[in-house]
Amino acid sequence: MTSKVYDLNEQTGKDMAQARATTSIKVGVVRDYLYNSAEEWRARSSIVQVLENDPVFDKSQRDFMSRTERYTRGMALTNRIYELQEQNNWSAQDTSIAIATLDEQLPIHLHNVAFQPVFNLQGAPSLVEKYGALIASHGIFGCYLQTELGHGTNVGRLETTATYIPQTQEFEINSPTITSSKWWIGALGKTATHGVVQAKLILGGKDLGPHLFFVQLRSLKDHTPLPGIVIGDIGPKSGAGFGPTDNGFARFDHVRIPKEQMLSKFAQVTDDGRYQQPPHAKLSYGGMLYIRANMVTGGGWLMAKAATVAIRYGTVRRQGEIGPDGLEKQIISYPSTYYRLLPILSHSYVFIQLGRQLTKAFDTMAACLAKGDTSLLAEMHATTSGLKVLVSSTGVQDIEVARRSMGGHGYSAFAGLGRMYNDYLPSVTYEGDNFVLDQQVVRAALKTLHSLFSSPKPDPSTLTPSSFYLRLLIPPVSMPVFSPSIEEWTHPTTAIVLLEWRAALVVSDLAKNIKYPDASVYQRVSKAVSEAFVAKQVGGMIDDLKTKLPGEREQTAVRNIFILYLLTTVETGLVDLLSFNVVRSTSGGDVTRTLRVAIRRLCEEILPEAIGLTDAFGFTDWELDSALGVRDGKVYEALWNRAQQEPLNKTVVPEAYGGSIRPMLLRGQKQAGVTTDGKAKL
Amino acid sequence: MTSKVYDLNEQTGKDMAQARATTSIKVGVVRDYLYNSAEEWRARSSIVQVLENDPVFDKSQRDFMSRTERYTRGMALTNRIYELQEQNNWSAQDTSIAIATLDEQLPIHLHNVAFQPVFNLQGAPSLVEKYGALIASHGIFGCYLQTELGHGTNVGRLETTATYIPQTQEFEINSPTITSSKWWIGALGKTATHGVVQAKLILGGKDLGPHLFFVQLRSLKDHTPLPGIVIGDIGPKSGAGFGPTDNGFARFDHVRIPKEQMLSKFAQVTDDGRYQQPPHAKLSYGGMLYIRANMVTGGGWLMAKAATVAIRYGTVRRQGEIGPDGLEKQIISYPSTYYRLLPILSHSYVFIQLGRQLTKAFDTMAACLAKGDTSLLAEMHATTSGLKVLVSSTGVQDIEVARRSMGGHGYSAFAGLGRMYNDYLPSVTYEGDNFVLDQQVVRAALKTLHSLFSSPKPDPSTLTPSSFYLRLLIPPVSMPVFSPSIEEWTHPTTAIVLLEWRAALVVSDLAKNIKYPDASVYQRVSKAVSEAFVAKQVGGMIDDLKTKLPGEREQTAVRNIFILYLLTTVETGLVDLLSFNVVRSTSGGDVTRTLRVAIRRLCEEILPEAIGLTDAFGFTDWELDSALGVRDGKVYEALWNRAQQEPLNKTVVPEAYGGSIRPMLLRGQKQAGVTTDGKAKL
Repeated sequence: MTSKVYDLNEQTGKDMAQARATTSIKVGVVRDYLYNSAEEWRARSSIVQVLENDPVFDKSQRDFMSRTERYTRGMALTNRIYELQEQNNWSAQDTSIAIATLDEQLPIHLHNVAFQPVFNLQGAPSLVEKYGALIASHGIFGCYLQTELGHGTNVGRLETTATYIPQTQEFEINSPTITSSKWWIGALGKTATHGVVQAKLILGGKDLGPHLFFVQLRSLKDHTPLPGIVIGDIGPKSGAGFGPTDNGFARFDHVRIPKEQMLSKFAQVTDDGRYQQPPHAKLSYGGMLYIRANMVTGGGWLMAKAATVAIRYGTVRRQGEIGPDGLEKQIISYPSTYYRLLPILSHSYVFIQLGRQLTKAFDTMAACLAKGDTSLLAEMHATTSGLKVLVSSTGVQDIEVARRSMGGHGYSAFAGLGRMYNDYLPSVTYEGDNFVLDQQVVRAALKTLHSLFSSPKPDPSTLTPSSFYLRLLIPPVSMPVFSPSIEEWTHPTTAIVLLEWRAALVVSDLAKNIKYPDASVYQRVSKAVSEAFVAKQVGGMIDDLKTKLPGEREQTAVRNIFILYLLTTVETGLVDLLSFNVVRSTSGGDVTRTLRVAIRRLCEEILPEAIGLTDAFGFTDWELDSALGVRDGKVYEALWNRAQQEPLNKTVVPEAYGGSIRPMLLRGQKQAGVTTDGKAKL
Repeated sequence: MTSKVYDLNEQTGKDMAQARATTSIKVGVVRDYLYNSAEEWRARSSIVQVLENDPVFDKSQRDFMSRTERYTRGMALTNRIYELQEQNNWSAQDTSIAIATLDEQLPIHLHNVAFQPVFNLQGAPSLVEKYGALIASHGIFGCYLQTELGHGTNVGRLETTATYIPQTQEFEINSPTITSSKWWIGALGKTATHGVVQAKLILGGKDLGPHLFFVQLRSLKDHTPLPGIVIGDIGPKSGAGFGPTDNGFARFDHVRIPKEQMLSKFAQVTDDGRYQQPPHAKLSYGGMLYIRANMVTGGGWLMAKAATVAIRYGTVRRQGEIGPDGLEKQIISYPSTYYRLLPILSHSYVFIQLGRQLTKAFDTMAACLAKGDTSLLAEMHATTSGLKVLVSSTGVQDIEVARRSMGGHGYSAFAGLGRMYNDYLPSVTYEGDNFVLDQQVVRAALKTLHSLFSSPKPDPSTLTPSSFYLRLLIPPVSMPVFSPSIEEWTHPTTAIVLLEWRAALVVSDLAKNIKYPDASVYQRVSKAVSEAFVAKQVGGMIDDLKTKLPGEREQTAVRNIFILYLLTTVETGLVDLLSFNVVRSTSGGDVTRTLRVAIRRLCEEILPEAIGLTDAFGFTDWELDSALGVRDGKVYEALWNRAQQEPLNKTVVPEAYGGSIRPMLLRGQKQAGVTTDGKAKL
């Protein structure tokens, strides 16, 4: 065999250029759709430019840094961001964008997203007046101390106490046991000067349950912990995730704070130690819902990054069968590859849009809440709980699927997806463990089901969007039996109706078997409920394309992406659909085959637009920070260049040589009776 | 509300002691079953004792180490192991156990498992005589250079050349392009002195495809790379995985080696440059199959570790609902938790047994191969390919499921499962990418199907164990329709027959649709085929319990574990079974419900034995190296103690304070109009 020599490195660049030339959609048009408008895209883009041209934000050494170096760098980034904010007169929104763009899990997030909102929402007006400006300008740095070593979500069992001392009008914060140590608190370990501490309020020996207290932790003079407080970092995280964040612990030894520092907007203690009940305890939920709503958008953009990197690599990596051009085929052209990657692309498009809708809905709800109207709270709670589970579990899975699709090189830190994965991994646990939230979603569904059928004439108009699928159970019930053809699968309504039927059936089945449900039922039902809701929303997104996305080709491409979302979602729900006989094979396996063939055909239609649809996210190389996702496609060059920077390569002979390698070799040579004593070339 | 104060830390110890007291099985009896005999357990145990009492093998600082420190430590461990081997007169087997026990991905693996076997198997007798002893005693340190920057599995397209120069009777090894750089080679980056290089053999300008060459890489005098060879480390891996291994790159610039250093047992070049074809190319496959067979055992023990850690933590962690004792419930008692963890336990029991069978089968095959008999090779290849995919994808998933079941603390590096995950992650890619192996498994199945039915009278006796399920397709076919009751599900034959039917149906369906299969079909069919094989083996394991595991309670407990494996495997195959109407609901969803209720009941039966069944693995705290998996159950104490060692805690005020934190706070204070200038307590 003689074979022409190809310059593989040059070929990667050609392949990427070729793929870009093949894309028929206008990338800018889709980009503006994703960013909501050309203006929002430009605003973001100009901020990214400032950052990537500033040496402080250089990422080239990041993969080699120790935990302490990551933390130190993270604080330098943060300081620089606020310096730039001042210099460039950035709005708060601009600064948020800048921080989100950094692709780092920073302590400042905890100040901005947990500490500040809770303080402002729950602090008494006088306290907010005293500290609000200082908190807004980061003149003090805050954290939110809830979780303890021995307790997480069940705040009723927290052990930290805040005992009121009427004589001095102070609270005494105390950690009675090792397990009462506050633990996992982001920004506490080394950074925060202040914190909001959740502690059981003790009045006259009586435990009134968890309340919030504003506590100074470190001196503003020299940053040392204040007397009675033992603070530290809790150590590294799985896979070096969250490296720059100083998740910390704190123990309080009878630390006194003035009475005014209880966050007392909704619950108060009188000077003589009587408790005044909160009028609307629920009003305090707003903050958590905001974080969850934001997670949907954030997760969508993360999936977008994973899809961009893996689809770009799949476009330039050639392996396996030889194509008509004498080259091996691009790996993206293999069904087993595009079947894994294009659904990730579809998830990102869906979650970005969902996040936008959710943020709008949150704003509406927050406006109502501010007027004391809690009517939208339950629906917002149900929606954000379900979507938080869906976005985080989908996102974690997608990042790994994308990484794995890149084969061997995907395991290099330079691929960038490992870092992304390990940073995103805790999202399945924080802001409500997914397994706990699943139960909440299901309980809400069962409650709605019960209340719907508690009336002799169930009224579908009482159903909110998150429970709209339950209308299908109102008599006369006409459960369909589907055996869709390949063509029929591509109509969005097929999938939407099926996903709604699935949710309705599994919820009513659980209600029937509630005395002894099976062990995984909450996960399955929660997923079915959330996916029915999302499917309906995706139907709306498809309808909206005509008005929101100019250009027929662009509409077709994005419509295909949305339909791919629907069909692959149905595929993951097949067990339910088949077991309830909603879809049924007319002869051996044909209904699953028509669905899967429809998915494959759809993928083949999307494939030529894949590079365009990922370019539309508008990520720069600095943002992606991935040798395998470089825009020009020259992945091998990028890997080679990065490897040269590896610290082990700074010396020709490693430090371990004298201490371990040489003694081992000499011992082995002696054992083998070779007498070179290491001096000669064998 | 007033509540009694419990000492949670003490409680963890009590809970663990209580769980141990509740176990009704004799742990030692099950342990001997897992280790094949009391002797094998004792041998292993005494080695572990030597290691854990030796300060070189201390793990307490590992989570804080940089990549370079991990590598340096790894070489120190390796050197110490061989020192101990000499001191304690360990057999090769003892030393293997010692290395496997270290819980580290070390460069020495590549010498022992890749370099040495290939060299011995394929080197000419004269070459093996010259270097064999030196290699065995680690007087030289080898690596195996196959993968290149631009190529992985498709060895036919490797770019490195070995051109024969008849004038000097030398080969000239050359890397013509950047993409021809050897890449990912374990132990190459900083350690290896020699390597076996895969390169295209060029004779008189003709490319004869990849062959193997023994090449010295570094000087034995001072460890510097030999002239013409550029070597280095390729940089960090995803999630800090494989930290101690120096995966490396190498470029060869016309490097000459003597003709004798071609590994020429199966292919030779005459002095004048003529090629002599290998008589039995297949004979060289043995090594790869050995590695894959070993992966099954190794994966089983890794799942065992994950199960042990998570089940122990689940036993002492209390959260959520309040039980009758006034304490929150142990999280292992929640169906959603034990449903995730007990299947992992079942996987470990199954893969440990499977690995043992496979190693035996490999030895039989190797003995045949040595006699030139290749008849067992095809079956061994089919079995190990499928099981490699199954064990690695199951293992990676299980470790993460176990980690996630531990909620927040599971994300701490001290939990230990993150490290395990990131080290095991590449197993889905190395030794054959799972997606490529899936295709091989399926092709073998289709080939067998075709050959079975190419005869007018298909003969089931021609079927090997890996394709035995195909007998079901031989006419007269009587496909059953199952609607098993809860009770019927617990008979192992139900699941085994169903899993065999599933494999038979998906294989024949693929054969029918081979012209346009769906995009995920190879993964699904490969899984079905492997799981049918494993199910049959598990049936055999259940039958063997009577003779291999003394004690009725012990038999029942392990039998339950095996049945749990079968039922949860059926659960993951429900889509196939339902879509081919092999199982069918008689009324809405009941067949899936009976299966799932059977699983839940089985879990409830296993649960009281869970601590005993994990103790039976015999892991010491040093081996597990997990704060959440400590034997005494005192997880909070363990987390606290480890956190105190975090390097960031060595100084009260972090380095970042002067450079970033203080300037940020002062700027903020100025902006807020607060004039403390950081000097006063606010």
